[in-house]
Amino acid sequence: MRKQKPVQESFVSMTELVLPNDTNTLNNLMGGRMMHLMDIAAAVSAQRHSNRIVVTASVDNVSFREGIRLGSVVTLEAKVTRAFSSSMEVHIDVWAEDIPSGTKVKSNEAFFTFVAVDQSGRPIDVPDALPETPTEQELYEGALRRRQLRLVLAGRLKPSEATELKALFDLA
Amino acid sequence: MRKQKPVQESFVSMTELVLPNDTNTLNNLMGGRMMHLMDIAAAVSAQRHSNRIVVTASVDNVSFREGIRLGSVVTLEAKVTRAFSSSMEVHIDVWAEDIPSGTKVKSNEAFFTFVAVDQSGRPIDVPDALPETPTEQELYEGALRRRQLRLVLAGRLKPSEATELKALFDLA
Amino acid sequence: MRKQKPVQESFVSMTELVLPNDTNTLNNLMGGRMMHLMDIAAAVSAQRHSNRIVVTASVDNVSFREGIRLGSVVTLEAKVTRAFSSSMEVHIDVWAEDIPSGTKVKSNEAFFTFVAVDQSGRPIDVPDALPETPTEQELYEGALRRRQLRLVLAGRLKPSEATELKALFDLA
Amino acid sequence: MRKQKPVQESFVSMTELVLPNDTNTLNNLMGGRMMHLMDIAAAVSAQRHSNRIVVTASVDNVSFREGIRLGSVVTLEAKVTRAFSSSMEVHIDVWAEDIPSGTKVKSNEAFFTFVAVDQSGRPIDVPDALPETPTEQELYEGALRRRQLRLVLAGRLKPSEATELKALFDLA
Amino acid sequence: MRKQKPVQESFVSMTELVLPNDTNTLNNLMGGRMMHLMDIAAAVSAQRHSNRIVVTASVDNVSFREGIRLGSVVTLEAKVTRAFSSSMEVHIDVWAEDIPSGTKVKSNEAFFTFVAVDQSGRPIDVPDALPETPTEQELYEGALRRRQLRLVLAGRLKPSEATELKALFDLA
Amino acid sequence: MRKQKPVQESFVSMTELVLPNDTNTLNNLMGGRMMHLMDIAAAVSAQRHSNRIVVTASVDNVSFREGIRLGSVVTLEAKVTRAFSSSMEVHIDVWAEDIPSGTKVKSNEAFFTFVAVDQSGRPIDVPDALPETPTEQELYEGALRRRQLRLVLAGRLKPSEATELKALFDLA
Repeated sequence: MRKQKPVQESFVSMTELVLPNDTNTLNNLMGGRMMHLMDIAAAVSAQRHSNRIVVTASVDNVSFREGIRLGSVVTLEAKVTRAFSSSMEVHIDVWAEDIPSGTKVKSNEAFFTFVAVDQSGRPIDVPDALPETPTEQELYEGALRRRQLRLVLAGRLKPSEATELKALFDLA
Repeated sequence: MRKQKPVQESFVSMTELVLPNDTNTLNNLMGGRMMHLMDIAAAVSAQRHSNRIVVTASVDNVSFREGIRLGSVVTLEAKVTRAFSSSMEVHIDVWAEDIPSGTKVKSNEAFFTFVAVDQSGRPIDVPDALPETPTEQELYEGALRRRQLRLVLAGRLKPSEATELKALFDLA
Repeated sequence: MRKQKPVQESFVSMTELVLPNDTNTLNNLMGGRMMHLMDIAAAVSAQRHSNRIVVTASVDNVSFREGIRLGSVVTLEAKVTRAFSSSMEVHIDVWAEDIPSGTKVKSNEAFFTFVAVDQSGRPIDVPDALPETPTEQELYEGALRRRQLRLVLAGRLKPSEATELKALFDLA
Repeated sequence: MRKQKPVQESFVSMTELVLPNDTNTLNNLMGGRMMHLMDIAAAVSAQRHSNRIVVTASVDNVSFREGIRLGSVVTLEAKVTRAFSSSMEVHIDVWAEDIPSGTKVKSNEAFFTFVAVDQSGRPIDVPDALPETPTEQELYEGALRRRQLRLVLAGRLKPSEATELKALFDLA
Repeated sequence: MRKQKPVQESFVSMTELVLPNDTNTLNNLMGGRMMHLMDIAAAVSAQRHSNRIVVTASVDNVSFREGIRLGSVVTLEAKVTRAFSSSMEVHIDVWAEDIPSGTKVKSNEAFFTFVAVDQSGRPIDVPDALPETPTEQELYEGALRRRQLRLVLAGRLKPSEATELKALFDLA
Repeated sequence: MRKQKPVQESFVSMTELVLPNDTNTLNNLMGGRMMHLMDIAAAVSAQRHSNRIVVTASVDNVSFREGIRLGSVVTLEAKVTRAFSSSMEVHIDVWAEDIPSGTKVKSNEAFFTFVAVDQSGRPIDVPDALPETPTEQELYEGALRRRQLRLVLAGRLKPSEATELKALFDLA
């Protein structure tokens, strides 16, 4: 049977200050810099899960809401939700904290997928994730549906075969 | 009637060298750095279309295929495909070029959405895009479907109301 | 009576990848880059404790042991140990993690001191730290002794008046 | 006969946003950062022409006119004008674009010279450039004169032997 | 009479380590990065001479000889040679030092010109430089000739009027 | 007898401009960035003394006084004070210069310790420093006392054995 590793062992918390070069003309964090940070946090999480070198395979749709001001503290929390052969889905939560006002708001949420590779860059199998809390369980179960959406969007799965996806679209 | 601006006027071509700090332990460009470059190229394109400050609103699913080596030349080409009130969808093509071998391959393709804002950060209307070639026309038409998918994924549109999306999922 | 704030509320966890530009000719993290990271983690901790802008006032003696390799994951954990009027002592623990070998070792430990200031840069009082665990209690108590050592080293306190310091030097 | 390669095949277009760290106290792009960008654009052009690793050999006199503001878009266009054995002259045009005002002005123009080298750093011959438009032809012809000026300035050619240069100085 | 300030008061010595991101595929310092360093050293020198904000006006022809290896120590020495109204010519010497072999070689030499400006960016007069050694005297005298060459190359002076320049070209 | 090398041969002068990304929300240089600069200047000094690769072993207590403004010129001067087998103590003086006001103030002073290593990272003996001026002599003599304090603080020397240190604490 396939080895499993508790989700918690891949947990990563990353804290960054928003510096001038990270911001646009409105003094808000640029979206591209935010995705750069998400990719690093998520990659470390996938590395901890697999004890392997990992490469980014895909990023799911990411929305940006409120601007994050220069000088704010950005906290990213990443963990592996589920693994499929050599690929791992990582969930990332991002909070923005404005110190003087003492406010901390959820800013973004995203799913990145990584592939574990050996030294010559060939994919290599990894343990599955073992969810231990209700939230981890829910993320584990949704992973299959999100994976089908990725495959459909990449043209590698026919929508009619995406059985899990139907739930998302509420189709009888 | 709403003003229109030719797609070609928002065209941006950006060329970057892959430097050591952009790479992972396999000496390949990191996914997060690639998204950072995409965001800058796409933002300049949306700025050219709108003559406004723009902020990243969302990024659609992005896939990463082959690794791009240290020392490679990365070329990004971005253009606005269509605008909705204050938001613009930008299409980005990425090529990776290995100079000594003289090879140049399509590496990625992505859609970013930006919102035009005034100096105080409030959304402000922009002209629509005017497609002038068959490819531009095709991207213009698909923009509505991709927008519905974004709204469904963000929980802001019921799948049953996403009429355009049904084409994607081939549903009768 | 002076307000107190639990130590735990100032806790910061920061994770960084060692990138090429952070390393010396031996491919190890440079000491100066490590101190730069420590300063950022500690400043965020002091900001969380005080809800103020903070400026670095001093750094205690820091030792560097084993080299940390390119590609390693560095984790910094910072928390305020105690506050004196407008100044806060922050304790930082640093771990270096080598993913392929699965090893994680304590790399450094340091104390930074920050001063909370208002918008015009004038010092402003902050709450004291409230230790809640035996480790936090021990750090709280040692803070007075370390503060005396700082003042003696800065020539602002006569050694003969540094009553707490005598314990350190075991002097009757 | 020596191989020739159309000028157009070495064309490079590079777009950059002026970020805070690129600017001086007046919030204008620093000259040194501009030259850094020119060198990268020109090096990619010389690499495309030669399919080789290239190293900067010299930079001709560069003038800086109007300041370029923080947040501006800088566009660099580079192409090889002519080659001599292992060296290539590259012409670079720079435009600065202020998005809100919709203005785009020619900011700089420069000539860089690169040498193509093999893996051990030894110079290696490259094809000549084949000019195909009147502008390319004019740049091709002027290249000889500029080369003589470089050699005279470097003390490697006697002014009396710089026959082409005399045209520049209008001397009978 | 115009105020004069000794050349020595504008002297700047700057030392930099060549880091991975500064290098090309051959592990040598890139020309553009070198010019970036030269510009910073020269700007500080012109600031010291004028006690003003300065902006880069032009760079004379720069030649690059031997490659400078990753890990080398680069030393730049800059000083103002002469001033004309609001502009200052700065001379920069660059040495490259390879620590393990104990070798230190002259790598480059360049002349940058800066203009002193007030807070709104308008040119403002500066003191002249006062040469005090034979080398400083020689640089002071040559400044006029180099200035004429810059004006001729920029199309702002007819070669026939460049009386000083004739010496350079050895023309009767 | 052990080889000696004049202190002056390890002298390093480093000049840096304070750029936006180096500053905090008050537009002052961040402490961590300052320590990063100190580490580079001190490492180059230790490399010049030893002609070896060096790694940071420890940093003594550093105090930060006045804030250093964005746009200021920071000058660091480093020299080896004394060597013990493979380790070297380096003294660093830092000045901050505000160009428009023409003020230059001593900002910091610090002692860093480096260890010389061979290509595989093993410590290797270095020459001792030869002090030639009264200041150099004073720094040479104090080095032993500072070394004992480092060893006591690192728990590697009993305070009662730190004979030199007693002077510091004025103990009979």
